[in-house]
Amino acid sequence: MAGSSFGEAFRISTFGESHGEAVGVIIDGVTPGVELDEPYIQVQMDRRKPGQSSVTSPRKEYDRIRILSGVYEGKTTGTPICILLNNTDMRPEAYSDIQHSFRPGHADYTYLQKYGLRDHRGSGRASGRETAGRVAAGAVARKLLERRGISIVAYTKAIGGIACETFVESEIERNAVRACDPEAALQMIQRIESLARAGNSCGGIVECRIRGAVAGLGEPVFDKLDADLAKSMLSIGAIKGIEFGAGFAAADMLGSEHNDEMNADGFLSNHAGGIIGGISTGNEIIFRVAVKPTSSISIPQHTINTSGDEQLIVTEGRHDPCICPRIVPVIEAMACLVLEDHYKRHAALLD
Amino acid sequence: MAGSSFGEAFRISTFGESHGEAVGVIIDGVTPGVELDEPYIQVQMDRRKPGQSSVTSPRKEYDRIRILSGVYEGKTTGTPICILLNNTDMRPEAYSDIQHSFRPGHADYTYLQKYGLRDHRGSGRASGRETAGRVAAGAVARKLLERRGISIVAYTKAIGGIACETFVESEIERNAVRACDPEAALQMIQRIESLARAGNSCGGIVECRIRGAVAGLGEPVFDKLDADLAKSMLSIGAIKGIEFGAGFAAADMLGSEHNDEMNADGFLSNHAGGIIGGISTGNEIIFRVAVKPTSSISIPQHTINTSGDEQLIVTEGRHDPCICPRIVPVIEAMACLVLEDHYKRHAALLD
Amino acid sequence: MAGSSFGEAFRISTFGESHGEAVGVIIDGVTPGVELDEPYIQVQMDRRKPGQSSVTSPRKEYDRIRILSGVYEGKTTGTPICILLNNTDMRPEAYSDIQHSFRPGHADYTYLQKYGLRDHRGSGRASGRETAGRVAAGAVARKLLERRGISIVAYTKAIGGIACETFVESEIERNAVRACDPEAALQMIQRIESLARAGNSCGGIVECRIRGAVAGLGEPVFDKLDADLAKSMLSIGAIKGIEFGAGFAAADMLGSEHNDEMNADGFLSNHAGGIIGGISTGNEIIFRVAVKPTSSISIPQHTINTSGDEQLIVTEGRHDPCICPRIVPVIEAMACLVLEDHYKRHAALLD
Amino acid sequence: MAGSSFGEAFRISTFGESHGEAVGVIIDGVTPGVELDEPYIQVQMDRRKPGQSSVTSPRKEYDRIRILSGVYEGKTTGTPICILLNNTDMRPEAYSDIQHSFRPGHADYTYLQKYGLRDHRGSGRASGRETAGRVAAGAVARKLLERRGISIVAYTKAIGGIACETFVESEIERNAVRACDPEAALQMIQRIESLARAGNSCGGIVECRIRGAVAGLGEPVFDKLDADLAKSMLSIGAIKGIEFGAGFAAADMLGSEHNDEMNADGFLSNHAGGIIGGISTGNEIIFRVAVKPTSSISIPQHTINTSGDEQLIVTEGRHDPCICPRIVPVIEAMACLVLEDHYKRHAALLD
Repeated sequence: MAGSSFGEAFRISTFGESHGEAVGVIIDGVTPGVELDEPYIQVQMDRRKPGQSSVTSPRKEYDRIRILSGVYEGKTTGTPICILLNNTDMRPEAYSDIQHSFRPGHADYTYLQKYGLRDHRGSGRASGRETAGRVAAGAVARKLLERRGISIVAYTKAIGGIACETFVESEIERNAVRACDPEAALQMIQRIESLARAGNSCGGIVECRIRGAVAGLGEPVFDKLDADLAKSMLSIGAIKGIEFGAGFAAADMLGSEHNDEMNADGFLSNHAGGIIGGISTGNEIIFRVAVKPTSSISIPQHTINTSGDEQLIVTEGRHDPCICPRIVPVIEAMACLVLEDHYKRHAALLD
Repeated sequence: MAGSSFGEAFRISTFGESHGEAVGVIIDGVTPGVELDEPYIQVQMDRRKPGQSSVTSPRKEYDRIRILSGVYEGKTTGTPICILLNNTDMRPEAYSDIQHSFRPGHADYTYLQKYGLRDHRGSGRASGRETAGRVAAGAVARKLLERRGISIVAYTKAIGGIACETFVESEIERNAVRACDPEAALQMIQRIESLARAGNSCGGIVECRIRGAVAGLGEPVFDKLDADLAKSMLSIGAIKGIEFGAGFAAADMLGSEHNDEMNADGFLSNHAGGIIGGISTGNEIIFRVAVKPTSSISIPQHTINTSGDEQLIVTEGRHDPCICPRIVPVIEAMACLVLEDHYKRHAALLD
Repeated sequence: MAGSSFGEAFRISTFGESHGEAVGVIIDGVTPGVELDEPYIQVQMDRRKPGQSSVTSPRKEYDRIRILSGVYEGKTTGTPICILLNNTDMRPEAYSDIQHSFRPGHADYTYLQKYGLRDHRGSGRASGRETAGRVAAGAVARKLLERRGISIVAYTKAIGGIACETFVESEIERNAVRACDPEAALQMIQRIESLARAGNSCGGIVECRIRGAVAGLGEPVFDKLDADLAKSMLSIGAIKGIEFGAGFAAADMLGSEHNDEMNADGFLSNHAGGIIGGISTGNEIIFRVAVKPTSSISIPQHTINTSGDEQLIVTEGRHDPCICPRIVPVIEAMACLVLEDHYKRHAALLD
Repeated sequence: MAGSSFGEAFRISTFGESHGEAVGVIIDGVTPGVELDEPYIQVQMDRRKPGQSSVTSPRKEYDRIRILSGVYEGKTTGTPICILLNNTDMRPEAYSDIQHSFRPGHADYTYLQKYGLRDHRGSGRASGRETAGRVAAGAVARKLLERRGISIVAYTKAIGGIACETFVESEIERNAVRACDPEAALQMIQRIESLARAGNSCGGIVECRIRGAVAGLGEPVFDKLDADLAKSMLSIGAIKGIEFGAGFAAADMLGSEHNDEMNADGFLSNHAGGIIGGISTGNEIIFRVAVKPTSSISIPQHTINTSGDEQLIVTEGRHDPCICPRIVPVIEAMACLVLEDHYKRHAALLD
């Protein structure tokens, strides 16, 4: 009930603060007998870790994971898998300035209001670093989904006002912003670098596609597949909105336009985004999320301190001027978790 | 795990099919000793029921609720409240045509894929009628929230391409589309009536504002307040997207624009929509949802039947050409449920 | 979290007070496509209802159930089944004397302490009548378990100091106390009738056997099969203890005596009661529960009223002098719920 | 749903195998701002660790805990506390003999049946070592309960047929078996040593008393306080039964004997064990559990191997001939977890 767990039949619990000793995750409900090793998970960690490119935070975290339990002789045992990441490049002293101030856009104020105290170092639990555990767990889910023939891919659709105009899947992992359009990617990188030099930041749109999911996933009425995907995405700090299929554009469409007609080969369109009535149609599941601009900027901003005094604040530290490139693997991870959970829930219902 | 329950500390479970004997809800976790009677709940039911105006379905459901348990001598007892609504104006025979066909945009196909059989009458469990139980439960939550000084209001922001340009709260319940701009409302009504005559339908945008919530609500990291609100909204059949505060527009903003600065009086803006790091800021919580056009239209569309044969289908029945007016109280109800649940969860944490 | 739900993959939620309008249950997670009708459930209701024999309460409740949802054309649809029982033979006025007094052994005092108010009529929610919903739900679980080849039988092992000395399964439903030894049954009936005449009551031991369960059910480490069975049984008001297999006698045994050895045909003994390490062994699952004497007696007892004044109280009303005969179907129902839930959970894990 | 978590408002998740890299626990829902340090927790770990005395296993585990998260500058932050214990004195090779055999009384057979494979080293997840995480979490709960004025004490009541005849609380931690009667303790120690020399083992009874709990804890109807305590206790591998207050003796009592009468000073007796209708009465909560004899004995026993071949087996290793002394802190820990959880749940209900 305190909020650090996600999923039901396939359930994860994360722990850890950005500049504490370690972050990590427990994954419970893993199918036994599935081959799993650390390198498989590490691949995903490396996509999320800082310091990948010129457009990401220069913090040096190797994000080397260790599996502490639940895997024996290279196979899952069906018992909880604990994955640990020690924090290494911690510089808590870099945060002493903000110990008593509220950085605009950050959760400093709300954490203090909620808990009455906070670990201010690098945003503590509110840090994007908490998502490392999610990505590790997502890799385990991905392994299970591979057996089911599911693939999940996310990518940058727009950054700082620059939108992709083509979808070239093979290009996504070849550019630093993980955009699906290589030409737009170049402009995005320039835009980010320019903003970074100015001490500013920008947001973007990330899209995610889930392929191979059978029809029938999702539990009416509250645990609809789209409802759980929405929750999973909004649980990522920087995400401020989500839309499925036609999404907000559906508001301007007619029923005759939006309805996905069918013929003997299946659906003739996919305005629903692969989910109708909260249940997967068998079509590609597609959704987009809005990513806000990174809150940490070095342009002076108005704020108050814990005594209520007004002041100007400049957020120092090693930050990503745009979080889209590194949020892509987090989005994929959360989507993997939701899908694997719903496969297991569906199996329970039918049993 | 099967999906018909929502909430943790304040938890509801709904049941019932559109043309079965009854629909209803159990509400568990209600604070004892609070005055509650049927007329208070009925007010909200009447806002949701069909047949309210020229732009809603002419189905005649009085939606008269009965409290079967959990209230004694006009006060809540702390035990589960069951609220029942008998279905009265059922015409299952009207659906015999679609027993073996999949209506485009409806959950006919996905339910059959999931369960292997379906109650086709009026969409069965996938019907908007299921939300009657939610609205009843939401009224109970609203009663509890009143003690906390919380008010929640939703309203139509756009329908069929016509957007509100002013926000006049007192006008919302005075027009048939529950729009916040009386002039836009007139155009919306004309638009809906015109589409209805053409056998077509349209979608829209509904906005919701939650006022009076203290700072500190929401449970990091997965059960963020916005994550739970997002799930609650996407659990409503017709909703295809949600955004908080600046929402998707945040994708095009700079950090220096999006961050909500503070002075001694509080926040200087509310691009975050009243939630930062998943925790309420004390500001107004504001979000918008995308409502798809009603799936039931009387324009012929391509589909298949359960044998896979292609056919043209016309969806008869008594439908809303635009569901926005009647979805408003459902959105408010879900928001009430989320808020009350999070108040209770917060109390548990601090205890 | 408020406690009126039980189970995870197969989940029930009960509602209703003894002398309110109705009691009932929602069952979520029911496998779709299974034949189910009201008479099948009614058979179990009739085993639980009052007025069955000379040794049960003369309250006249026909306990006629109605299925309100989740079954269509004689088959489960996979959506929630709501089962309702109207209360008919209510005599709330019979309880006006105790409105302001605490009956010894009853939950009057604790409910008032917890909630600050209470529905005193017939113990309200604390009444054994609440178990009617459980028995209805248990019948649905039993239907699902039949497909798996599971049978569950409970019976009286001892009442008022008289113990069964033989186990004749075919006799259980043939005597009014549901004892497994027909000669002991006769003595038990005499004992109960004699106590009833004296205005007193007695307790007993009920044993339950679950046959046909595969090896492998139960989720280490907290949701062990015996842990969940123990919780389910202690959730029944009158039950004060449970033991599996050798149970408390194991405390006096040596390891060499208690360990169940194996040969190629299986286990050579069943001191574990069919569950080792929280997981079913494939052996018969066997446990016993301690049933306290009925709290309602007409012998004057010392108590206080809500003002704290001391008084003598005599509990009038229509009570069972020994609840064992009627608790048997409740125990079976709870065991059915636990088993079906664990089958489904196991299926989710392996999927 | 996979079973490695316990509690709702105060929730723990354990992980780890006996001879894997580490065992540990995540605790979520901890009240923020409470002073907590490692030595406070270590005190409880030292009561559970092996090698304490002549009657416990000689395995050398220092059980040195490390808090990885959730505590900052000596205070809880309200975020999840992860506590890790590295396994140090692992001798997996000692278990190579039993890799393909099923030790009687152990979960070897059931784990293999459930999961299709198992980590056989020291019983893997089924080892008593898993309870180390519970004791650590229980210490955190104990800290929170101290603020509420709650104390929880468990002690050996009987071992190997020798029962305590007095209750001298101050003696409990002064004897190696944690018995409440120092003279009986001496006999118990002799009995255990004698059995150990013979390669055999014995069981016992442990009693637990919870003092200072307010009236009103426990959530009807399924999450009764006794139901949750029962589940928590039966989730401990060696425990085969539980009884509250008069317990199984209630089966032979009359209503006039068992009912706890009241006068202006409170209850005149406590046959109910401090819980009526699933809700605490304010009286001392008292229950007893049956502890089975340790399964690991060095007397040859009949079993089969994974190929089904019959064989004689002798369980080598470093085992406790009677687990009662070391199970005492585990029982206290689980009781602490249940109480803290129910305090928080009660706070949520009333809020």
